[in-house]
Amino acid sequence: MTETINAAFYRGDRSFVVETTQTQAPKAGEVAIRTAFCGICGTDMHVFHGNMDARVGHNRIVGHEMSGVVEAVGPGVTEVSVGQKVVVRPLDHCGDCPACNAGHFHVCHKLKFLGLDTDGAMQEIWTVPAHTIHILPDTLRLDHAALIEPVAVACHDVRLSGLQKDEDVLVIGGGPIGMLCAMVARDAGGNVVISEVNEARLAIAEKLGFATVNPAKSDLADAINARTGNKGADVVFEVSGTQPGVDAMTACAATRARIVMVAIHAQKPQIDLFQFFWRELKLIGARVYEPVDYEKAISIVASGGVDADTVITDVSPLTDIQSAFESLDSSPTALKSLIKVGDVA
Amino acid sequence: MTETINAAFYRGDRSFVVETTQTQAPKAGEVAIRTAFCGICGTDMHVFHGNMDARVGHNRIVGHEMSGVVEAVGPGVTEVSVGQKVVVRPLDHCGDCPACNAGHFHVCHKLKFLGLDTDGAMQEIWTVPAHTIHILPDTLRLDHAALIEPVAVACHDVRLSGLQKDEDVLVIGGGPIGMLCAMVARDAGGNVVISEVNEARLAIAEKLGFATVNPAKSDLADAINARTGNKGADVVFEVSGTQPGVDAMTACAATRARIVMVAIHAQKPQIDLFQFFWRELKLIGARVYEPVDYEKAISIVASGGVDADTVITDVSPLTDIQSAFESLDSSPTALKSLIKVGDVA
Repeated sequence: MTETINAAFYRGDRSFVVETTQTQAPKAGEVAIRTAFCGICGTDMHVFHGNMDARVGHNRIVGHEMSGVVEAVGPGVTEVSVGQKVVVRPLDHCGDCPACNAGHFHVCHKLKFLGLDTDGAMQEIWTVPAHTIHILPDTLRLDHAALIEPVAVACHDVRLSGLQKDEDVLVIGGGPIGMLCAMVARDAGGNVVISEVNEARLAIAEKLGFATVNPAKSDLADAINARTGNKGADVVFEVSGTQPGVDAMTACAATRARIVMVAIHAQKPQIDLFQFFWRELKLIGARVYEPVDYEKAISIVASGGVDADTVITDVSPLTDIQSAFESLDSSPTALKSLIKVGDVA
Repeated sequence: MTETINAAFYRGDRSFVVETTQTQAPKAGEVAIRTAFCGICGTDMHVFHGNMDARVGHNRIVGHEMSGVVEAVGPGVTEVSVGQKVVVRPLDHCGDCPACNAGHFHVCHKLKFLGLDTDGAMQEIWTVPAHTIHILPDTLRLDHAALIEPVAVACHDVRLSGLQKDEDVLVIGGGPIGMLCAMVARDAGGNVVISEVNEARLAIAEKLGFATVNPAKSDLADAINARTGNKGADVVFEVSGTQPGVDAMTACAATRARIVMVAIHAQKPQIDLFQFFWRELKLIGARVYEPVDYEKAISIVASGGVDADTVITDVSPLTDIQSAFESLDSSPTALKSLIKVGDVA
């Protein structure tokens, strides 16, 4: 099987070009997937902005929030069959570093992220290691399934928080990942409040049925204390990546609260460590996902625990990938944009 | 029972005076203890320096790291008898705040710390609520028993870290609490390194059999990586209360390490939050102790798991309390100073 397919290449300087390329038959241990949909991740936006050129170069096919159908399997692959609907957990670990030796493959010291360190899913056929595949229920819509990767991030965050039913949850930052954390936390029985300064996103959060606070307009800690009998939030997700978010995460936390660090803080913010001591707070770093998080994400998306139709605000064909990235950059109301990569039965 | 006893009063401006006072018979639910020894805590030094005048006033009997023998019990007290050797867990909780309602009495929102918010153990007879008493084995020396309170702090820190046998441990800061964390962590099977810049304290750490690093002389992260095959420390205790200590706690941590925040950071240091995300680090705030930590501390001190004779560097009579505080302030080699409060059979 050598086949000519369409693929979108990042060529530097905020530009994607769609060109044809050749795909090869899958090798031993590999699976070739006909890509249906691929979401645009915040990381893909960083690539678009030129912030990751050193890592991805100027001839990279990006994309990892995908869904598709198995087109072919390489020799020795028995765990998945042609025609099955699948998603990819886009992590390839080395198997021989201190993290891998401890069984923490998802934080491998030499982790390859498929779609950044290798070519990704913005191509009609994507070939990946079989161990990265998760099989979907036949009934799951493939556009909805493109949300499974970011939902798995949220499932990992919520699982590491140890959230219990009826606990009070604060999500700081109502972008796509914050909104998914909120939905997964609600699915787990949490009483969720979303803090966000963007009014368009607050409107989406309210449409999704969440209590909201705009911390630019009213004091967030006062609002959380009023809702919780002066207890504070049992679980806080810091998804804003800002100093005010970091200030709020300690100010709004209950005694012995768990704060999950979801955001990527490039700077080193100041943290109120005294509160960690005084109220025995816990800060939990969370990165990507493990297989169990993918299975949970599949089950939540399949059961409607995530309102996929509200989260997916745009779908564009692969040929329009350039304008899809440009729109996402400028739209205050966009949440998740999908690229329809190919026609999949 | 009304009795005239000696007591040391903090009178402000770096001064203690020893005067007689009257003690009353214990009321219902109270226990009167004839105090044997009382250690000088870092917090007592803060009182001495005048930093806590607003909280303690100028007529306070301080002291909480004590040991003694039960002198009398009030009506209704059945859990302890006259003549038993005891220590006091100096925490009195309100029973009706969000922390108490969740069972976290030791971080009660209205916690009274005995010896700061009430009069303490630097008096010949100290009367306390019965629920604060822990009974000692008859064979335990009362001077060694005065270490149980700070050892319980270390037991709490080590317990919250979830330390497992053979894990690599870094203690940042080799003062009394850091040294006790190191000993308790070693007792739990950890491979412990102590980082400290004070050469006198490094010498004590080495006498106690610990590996040490002086981060002013060699790179701490390099040293930890060299010892751990580039893995890093599985458990880090930040006991320094400094920005370099906070920098080191992330730099030296293994993937998925647990960092216990033991120090009281009055400032808000900058923290490398990216490392929390990237390596899924956990920061665990730890304050004082719970009853189980006291029982563990009694068992460790009784079994020699803590080298009490090396930790106790001075013992002074109550009449010399002023010079004991002054010496501790200026001595680089002092670790734990005890006051012999009274003669106890």
